[in-house]
Amino acid sequence: MAESLTIDSFQKHISEKYEKVDRARGAPKTFLWFMEEVGELASALNSDDRANLEEEFADVLAWLCTLANISDVNLTEAVTRKYLGKARPEGHK
Amino acid sequence: MAESLTIDSFQKHISEKYEKVDRARGAPKTFLWFMEEVGELASALNSDDRANLEEEFADVLAWLCTLANISDVNLTEAVTRKYLGKARPEGHK
Repeated sequence: MAESLTIDSFQKHISEKYEKVDRARGAPKTFLWFMEEVGELASALNSDDRANLEEEFADVLAWLCTLANISDVNLTEAVTRKYLGKARPEGHK
Repeated sequence: MAESLTIDSFQKHISEKYEKVDRARGAPKTFLWFMEEVGELASALNSDDRANLEEEFADVLAWLCTLANISDVNLTEAVTRKYLGKARPEGHK
């Protein structure tokens, strides 16, 4: 297992494979695909199929990366600023 | 910027800060909080506030990490298996 996989390299990997198509499709339609994966994650959380559950988590993360790519958002910068800064993050319930 | 931030270390950071509370709350209720952040991401995609958009991406990723933590899913293993294996990933539309 590649424990050393960075958020940045995974986001770039998704960019190389999918950004062109996803950017042409646009954020609203790409968000619909993302939501489909979120729905599949909900189903998987409700079942006993561990392999499928893992796969659905992977899919949601991949679609989140592509949404970030076509929105010109760097996820590493985003989480570093919000969750790894000095202050205790707000908004986590 | 910490380009070297790994998925694993961020997932562990979220675990250290939030897993105990989130695990006690359980996956169904934690999923509701995750969905609230997904909704806020949708709103942000529909606005011109770049800083807020970045923050909402961070929140969705953080809540995805906590859902994975309480589901005993390692996100690095999950995406490595699905997206960084030999075969071209299926299911990306």
